[in-house]
Amino acid sequence: MAKDKKLVEQITSMEEDFAQWYTDVVKKAELIDYTSVKGCMVIKPAGYAIWELIQRQLDDRFKETGVENVYLPMFIPESLLQKEKDHVEGFAPEVAWVTHGGLNPLQERLCVRPTSETLFCDFYQKNIQSYRDLPKVYNQWCSVVRWEKETRPFLRSREFLWQEGHTAHATAEEAEARTIQMLNVYANFCEEVLAMPVIRGRKTDKEKFAGAEATYTIEALMHDGKALQSGTSHNFGDGFAKAFGIQYTDKDNKLQYVHQTSWGMTTRLIGAIIMVHGDDSGLVLPPKVAPTQVMIMPIMQKKEGVLEKAEELRGMLAGNFRVKVDDSDKSPGFKFAEQEMRGIPLRVEVGPKDIEAGQAVIVRRDTREKFVVSFEELAAKVGELLDLMQKEMFERAKAHRDSHTYVATNWDEFTDILEHKPGFIKAMWCGEEGCETAIKEETGATTRCMPFEQENLGDVCVHCGKPAKKMVYFGRAY
Amino acid sequence: MAKDKKLVEQITSMEEDFAQWYTDVVKKAELIDYTSVKGCMVIKPAGYAIWELIQRQLDDRFKETGVENVYLPMFIPESLLQKEKDHVEGFAPEVAWVTHGGLNPLQERLCVRPTSETLFCDFYQKNIQSYRDLPKVYNQWCSVVRWEKETRPFLRSREFLWQEGHTAHATAEEAEARTIQMLNVYANFCEEVLAMPVIRGRKTDKEKFAGAEATYTIEALMHDGKALQSGTSHNFGDGFAKAFGIQYTDKDNKLQYVHQTSWGMTTRLIGAIIMVHGDDSGLVLPPKVAPTQVMIMPIMQKKEGVLEKAEELRGMLAGNFRVKVDDSDKSPGFKFAEQEMRGIPLRVEVGPKDIEAGQAVIVRRDTREKFVVSFEELAAKVGELLDLMQKEMFERAKAHRDSHTYVATNWDEFTDILEHKPGFIKAMWCGEEGCETAIKEETGATTRCMPFEQENLGDVCVHCGKPAKKMVYFGRAY
Repeated sequence: MAKDKKLVEQITSMEEDFAQWYTDVVKKAELIDYTSVKGCMVIKPAGYAIWELIQRQLDDRFKETGVENVYLPMFIPESLLQKEKDHVEGFAPEVAWVTHGGLNPLQERLCVRPTSETLFCDFYQKNIQSYRDLPKVYNQWCSVVRWEKETRPFLRSREFLWQEGHTAHATAEEAEARTIQMLNVYANFCEEVLAMPVIRGRKTDKEKFAGAEATYTIEALMHDGKALQSGTSHNFGDGFAKAFGIQYTDKDNKLQYVHQTSWGMTTRLIGAIIMVHGDDSGLVLPPKVAPTQVMIMPIMQKKEGVLEKAEELRGMLAGNFRVKVDDSDKSPGFKFAEQEMRGIPLRVEVGPKDIEAGQAVIVRRDTREKFVVSFEELAAKVGELLDLMQKEMFERAKAHRDSHTYVATNWDEFTDILEHKPGFIKAMWCGEEGCETAIKEETGATTRCMPFEQENLGDVCVHCGKPAKKMVYFGRAY
Repeated sequence: MAKDKKLVEQITSMEEDFAQWYTDVVKKAELIDYTSVKGCMVIKPAGYAIWELIQRQLDDRFKETGVENVYLPMFIPESLLQKEKDHVEGFAPEVAWVTHGGLNPLQERLCVRPTSETLFCDFYQKNIQSYRDLPKVYNQWCSVVRWEKETRPFLRSREFLWQEGHTAHATAEEAEARTIQMLNVYANFCEEVLAMPVIRGRKTDKEKFAGAEATYTIEALMHDGKALQSGTSHNFGDGFAKAFGIQYTDKDNKLQYVHQTSWGMTTRLIGAIIMVHGDDSGLVLPPKVAPTQVMIMPIMQKKEGVLEKAEELRGMLAGNFRVKVDDSDKSPGFKFAEQEMRGIPLRVEVGPKDIEAGQAVIVRRDTREKFVVSFEELAAKVGELLDLMQKEMFERAKAHRDSHTYVATNWDEFTDILEHKPGFIKAMWCGEEGCETAIKEETGATTRCMPFEQENLGDVCVHCGKPAKKMVYFGRAY
């Protein structure tokens, strides 16, 4: 059995080196591979299938709120990118430039979209005339490019997959309502589908999106106590509309500027799943995004009737669950290790003795609990355990998050927590950007968000001692 | 009513100017919009929803044959593109080059993928060691870029959406079988889902894909008698494997090269749907790819109970069909014209008199036949009519294709047909590339394919009179 365990033993433990553990998991669970293009990755079948489940379920939630999907070009002419001042300053330093098409130099260079606000504005400018054309609630699924210097699989790569919603509304109120609505879609998706609790709040002006009036965020806590920004929703007010001249005639025949929003989630969510739920045996997937929910393991599969029974059980479960049989010629120990590494929620073992007794053994990936169930009860028990696992994974992640969320009422406490207790720090803040910058420079901690659920933790800023304006979540972030 | 018809009257008729008719339809059915990026388009909600239905149904068919989805980078280093000689010659003249990342020039320029054979080879070279790693049957959905000079919406644009399957196999036989299998998946999809009959066959060496040993194709006939290549499947043999060093150890522990295939379908299929099924009132969508299958039209909708009944009918149909109510404040004539322009298969009219009589009127988009049905029978009749329409659209397209397929046994017949009868020409060919080139230069007609179903139409080549080797479909093509 020593050899069988090799797959697992090669993973670094989380306690020893969390970053290396992460790299080991993405490679050994076969989620990604590196490529000849620095900073870009191959998303392999096991990784892409998770993304497909995220896409399908998130897209369904979008469509329930009236979102329509579109596709805009991947190229942005330089002059278009430059139309909104803050936006171009934020993105120009990190875009890839196309300078030649075929054998000829281009008259104007094109950047590969890092995000598509400018293209949507150009499109809306032509397509919106009257109040009857509003609202526009469009979204696209695509890849974007940002020329990052340091890259990590899923968390930060030069190309990544995402969705970007872009909307245009008649009034400021409607735009603000859509911004918050989509943040809530994101938060509910993370909690209900990814089993990942999030803090909802607003970014400080320093941390907001380039060109936005307000950026809202959901922030999750990873197992190592670092924060991960997991989705953002921006209210642009009429800033882009003024830069691009996007106007409509209202019911009184007056020209008005539209109010816009955008919101996005990315393949970085796969990184979040790994870092919230994984353990020293590898990935642990929430059942709702597990490409294979149940792996049936025939034991002593060369014995007569074993493979047939495994296939029969697969047939019983296939209508309601994503289920496979591992009938490869590897040893059971190896297969178990592989199933655990890949985070498949349930393993169903069935061998000659089980068949004789008319039963199978179910093993939960997260708790490793075993359940002996009769074949008749198998489908019901599998459904029950998947539901329970989804629920308990959320509860465990929430308990971990809550037990790693600290309050600092003065600077000594703040630095002491940062040094010894990785996690979120809740603290009061004066609202000054200079103070926020100083905190970041002194400690590496950034403001994650000003949560919607404010608490009064004192009257003065944790850093400068001036009157406090907001309770803020601080943390070290990915 | 004059004003109501404006939407339709603005379309050029097919007979008058087919190219202008096509452009009118893509714009007025709101499928696309032009952009500030020359040769690139916006796919608007009505167009993208068709693509989503194509994607979903084609992807399901892929997965039934064991295909797994992945995602590879959009960039290809120049040195990688150059590894296979024929391939680079075919694509280098029409790719877009990225030369700068952020503020710095790149050490090696990257092209935006025009197709991903080279990236898949690089990936397979690292991921295939043993016969146990085979076959690899991977696919990706993405966008690709080819710097075309002349562009037309859906048919030829600088960026387009597609899927590209790339497989690696232990033997030549298995690769050939997969190549043919995927061609058949494409053909069946076109016929069963898009209601579009296709000819299956093999491309001549002159027309095959850059780097392929054999290219198979499905060819469809558009309403104007021009051919459209609608999907291709390539067998690469071991050519790429040798260029990239993709080897595996077989069961006897000997090193062998893999055999590879690739196959693709694109958003050009939307162009095919338009040109096969459309008419002078606009788009006609096969029910299986119609984002809205039934549009309920309340008549005299301000009268009490009309909108309520329309909504009630929508509720009755919503479980089984994609259905909407058009309760906008436009006139019925305008709404009808709009529904016809957008190609929505069925219109259900319901007004005060219908409600009194307990019935509604269904109108088929393709034939304009009217059916008066009781509310109780509505759902069953809608289902029946959608099925019938799907079937009859295919039959009509096939009858059109067959009646526009001609046989030429000598050169006079060939040129006479080409001049007077737009359509496919079946003719015998000597198999010489020089002769094929001469035919193209003299007439503009190209070999569309050597069909699997060969017929003997004579002993000599239609052009040069030398002994004939193959029966070929010729045509002018998009």
